[in-house]
Amino acid sequence: MHVAVDALGGDNAPAEIVAGTFAAAKRLPDDELILVGGAEVAWDALSSGIPGNVSFRESGGAIRMDEEPAAALRARPDTSVAVAARAVRAGEADAFFSAGSTGATVAAALLEVGRIKGCRRPAIATILPFDKPTLLLDVGATVACRPQDLLNFAILGGVFASRYLGLREAPRIGLLNVGEEPGKGDDLAREAHGLLAASGVVDFVGNVEGRNIARGVADVLVTDGFTGNVVLKTAEGVAREIMEMVGGEVTSTVLTKLAGIVLRPRLLAVHARVDPENYGGSFLLGVRGSVVIGHGNSCARGVENALLGISRAGAGLVEESERALATVQEQSTGDKV
Amino acid sequence: MHVAVDALGGDNAPAEIVAGTFAAAKRLPDDELILVGGAEVAWDALSSGIPGNVSFRESGGAIRMDEEPAAALRARPDTSVAVAARAVRAGEADAFFSAGSTGATVAAALLEVGRIKGCRRPAIATILPFDKPTLLLDVGATVACRPQDLLNFAILGGVFASRYLGLREAPRIGLLNVGEEPGKGDDLAREAHGLLAASGVVDFVGNVEGRNIARGVADVLVTDGFTGNVVLKTAEGVAREIMEMVGGEVTSTVLTKLAGIVLRPRLLAVHARVDPENYGGSFLLGVRGSVVIGHGNSCARGVENALLGISRAGAGLVEESERALATVQEQSTGDKV
Repeated sequence: MHVAVDALGGDNAPAEIVAGTFAAAKRLPDDELILVGGAEVAWDALSSGIPGNVSFRESGGAIRMDEEPAAALRARPDTSVAVAARAVRAGEADAFFSAGSTGATVAAALLEVGRIKGCRRPAIATILPFDKPTLLLDVGATVACRPQDLLNFAILGGVFASRYLGLREAPRIGLLNVGEEPGKGDDLAREAHGLLAASGVVDFVGNVEGRNIARGVADVLVTDGFTGNVVLKTAEGVAREIMEMVGGEVTSTVLTKLAGIVLRPRLLAVHARVDPENYGGSFLLGVRGSVVIGHGNSCARGVENALLGISRAGAGLVEESERALATVQEQSTGDKV
Repeated sequence: MHVAVDALGGDNAPAEIVAGTFAAAKRLPDDELILVGGAEVAWDALSSGIPGNVSFRESGGAIRMDEEPAAALRARPDTSVAVAARAVRAGEADAFFSAGSTGATVAAALLEVGRIKGCRRPAIATILPFDKPTLLLDVGATVACRPQDLLNFAILGGVFASRYLGLREAPRIGLLNVGEEPGKGDDLAREAHGLLAASGVVDFVGNVEGRNIARGVADVLVTDGFTGNVVLKTAEGVAREIMEMVGGEVTSTVLTKLAGIVLRPRLLAVHARVDPENYGGSFLLGVRGSVVIGHGNSCARGVENALLGISRAGAGLVEESERALATVQEQSTGDKV
């Protein structure tokens, strides 16, 4: 695969982006990685040895976090994220990665790469990193969804999860809802439940409550982008808060401090298991290429893992997704998309 | 205050409900507690000594978890939860508590107690039990909300939180949303933001993201019942999962097991701080009395804490809530309620 990397996006750009790209390049000898950025990237690169499967492409500056993405893309067509996205449109890359503004990455993907056939709206899919990883989507691309959108997310998420997580069986799809019974939820949830249950294409396990999202009861959990975003950030915030509370208790007396020294590697092991850098980013599904949104504070390890993930999801993701969407739409007599 | 207690609702009824009521009665000598239930309640009661401020009221059986609440209430007007609710309507009680089916408690409150003036829809308010407690509402009473409902929830939640949490300053109200900027979110969130910012009555701190709900950035967080329910259950599920992961790591080798023995009380302290039994239940706001929905698995301590909470929220909650809603509606030239 060929992957364009926005070297200027993110809090630690360009140094950590370049370092992560170089690390990934060594582990992905069959892939070609294209670093997109200004002169400062070449400078960093020269100081640490350039793998043979990494190339460079000139661009203008990054889109800043405080810029309105669509306006910035119109005003400055040579920003690094736009040049990376355009490489996908031109067929020079299969995928692009950016740890810059999420809004700018999504806007660049929609404007430059475009949606896949049969997909009205895209979704951002992210792994909930508990013992059994679960793919949650949408976590913020489409805050107002129709029922058909959630069915599409189930299809797109299923195709992606199978490849990305290496599932051996058909992915189990769940609908995030306020109760397990089919009649639960608001209009969107109830109608989406009906579409998912009737589709015959996805292995639908029914409604999944918030209390079970960390338990691996489904491989893929679909919801609208408003709920998904709030849920994802809540899960991250609560995990962090609990770890801090445990850490605070552990060091509160001399005896527990000693015990804490013994246990520190164990607590760090839990930290490590839920560390978002393990996956390195979220995938934007529903566009004509693999688009990965890195964390704003991505370090080299996160960038490396994100690029390994793109390779794992593999070439042909777009084509397989389009075929899967088409199958459902042939069966559907309902909503037009 | 006079409080009716449904002695038959919940997994551990009647024994734990009765025990918790007796314990609360001793700590609330000025309150009158009315245990509502069948013959089995009197039996339990006789075996453990009856405080002078506890009385009994006969009822039929409980509403089962698998019954459709509204149908059960129509078919059997003498269920314990209906009799408890009717005591509030008759003015014999200011509040009622039930650890039975949430749906039945909400339905009994709406049918028998009724809504307060100016409140189109009720909300279930629950404390997020982190270092700085935050009141989250709605967590499931109204899954489909209008913007005006969220403004009402802010008013009701503010009045309640001031009393229940004993706040010295005006409660800080936040709107749960996908980003902090005013323009973020779906139509509901954007319009609710406008109403809250313009109301002039609440101390509105703006949008709050999921990642910050455990950080005490607001005293009261408002959202629709769909999002709130999923968020609350996610927070509970993630907290439980992280504690289990930490527990598993702690006991994985002999050395860490020894350290774990030293640390066990500390881990239990974290458990204890986030234990839902500390509050014992959620309040249904927007009805003409204090209505508390206990956890289905409430033990005596949870029941006791719920009844102490009712007393803390105090008499006059309904009247103060109505006055506050009226103030907003006089100022409002917008939505009719």
